[in-house]
Amino acid sequence: MKFLHRLDLLTWSVFDCDRNVDFNSIAWIRPAGHVLIDPLPLSDHDWQHLQSLGETAWIVITNSDHIRASQEIADRTGAQIAGPRAEQATFAIGCDRYLAEGDEIVPGLTVMELHGSKTPGELALLLDDNILITGDLVRAHQANQLMLLPQPKLQDPKAAQESVQRLASLSQIETVLVGDGWSIFENGHQYLQALAQKQLSG
Amino acid sequence: MKFLHRLDLLTWSVFDCDRNVDFNSIAWIRPAGHVLIDPLPLSDHDWQHLQSLGETAWIVITNSDHIRASQEIADRTGAQIAGPRAEQATFAIGCDRYLAEGDEIVPGLTVMELHGSKTPGELALLLDDNILITGDLVRAHQANQLMLLPQPKLQDPKAAQESVQRLASLSQIETVLVGDGWSIFENGHQYLQALAQKQLSG
Repeated sequence: MKFLHRLDLLTWSVFDCDRNVDFNSIAWIRPAGHVLIDPLPLSDHDWQHLQSLGETAWIVITNSDHIRASQEIADRTGAQIAGPRAEQATFAIGCDRYLAEGDEIVPGLTVMELHGSKTPGELALLLDDNILITGDLVRAHQANQLMLLPQPKLQDPKAAQESVQRLASLSQIETVLVGDGWSIFENGHQYLQALAQKQLSG
Repeated sequence: MKFLHRLDLLTWSVFDCDRNVDFNSIAWIRPAGHVLIDPLPLSDHDWQHLQSLGETAWIVITNSDHIRASQEIADRTGAQIAGPRAEQATFAIGCDRYLAEGDEIVPGLTVMELHGSKTPGELALLLDDNILITGDLVRAHQANQLMLLPQPKLQDPKAAQESVQRLASLSQIETVLVGDGWSIFENGHQYLQALAQKQLSG
């Protein structure tokens, strides 16, 4: 796994030929048990890396299109799975917990629900107040700029726009870690504001 | 290939298990012929992507440890190869051109020679004045911070430090594209200054 901007935050990626971007997963390494977000299959090397750092406690899935290797990793690690409450009735795998707005997964990691994306109640996560972690709605197919999930995939563009406005109002965001594409490590708030502005003017 | 911050700059990567970083290559897409920098092997998908964008004119190799797939790609594309002049006597493959300080490879892409790295005269490239492209000496094993090639690999730490000071004096640098690890897309000059300062104080 690759180190993000903090030594307790790691990532692994798979290149997607359809979109020419990397799909990313995140591991937050914690003494009380790691939290994995939208985990892709792990190579043997990354498995060993992850397990050398301790136990995995939770797997958080932001939306049903990002289940990826969650079940296999849960089976292998004994981690519990958390998914979006708004998808509870139809989620393809069983979750130990269903998350909605304001829930705290573990101390320091809280949930925001986004609306209008390709699935209802897509989760965005706020880590230590200044790191935003997004699944599908907010992404970056090009380095150094955020974009929205393309319009044809949005269930409700107006609701999606309102969710982005809300993310853009979080003035403390420094880092935006995206599930699909290029993450932003500095001035995340400004990038979210630029995205929100683009939606309004576009 | 993935899009960097400009639509005419693309990258492809291979994860390196020894260092837990991505090794990166760059393609600068140009009507007069693309320039590839330190090219890794290309997947079939990336080959098709590259060739769909036109001809490849030049392959630039920053140092003899970054030859990677240059010869195979040159054979397949007809591109010419350029390598560091200071390694001319011992370079493992033949180059069509040997580059040194101040050379212009194609309009907009100029050469700086770095000293004290693991090989003599390692090339750094300056694209359009505000993009610095580095091979081995300046790198990022962790997102959002630059580092120097680890000390045991430096031929001359003092000369390396002086080269970094020189890079840090380029106040117009916004972007630092590294061969190994995480590139910087904003405020590159400040990151280079922080690196130089760390060398001085360390």
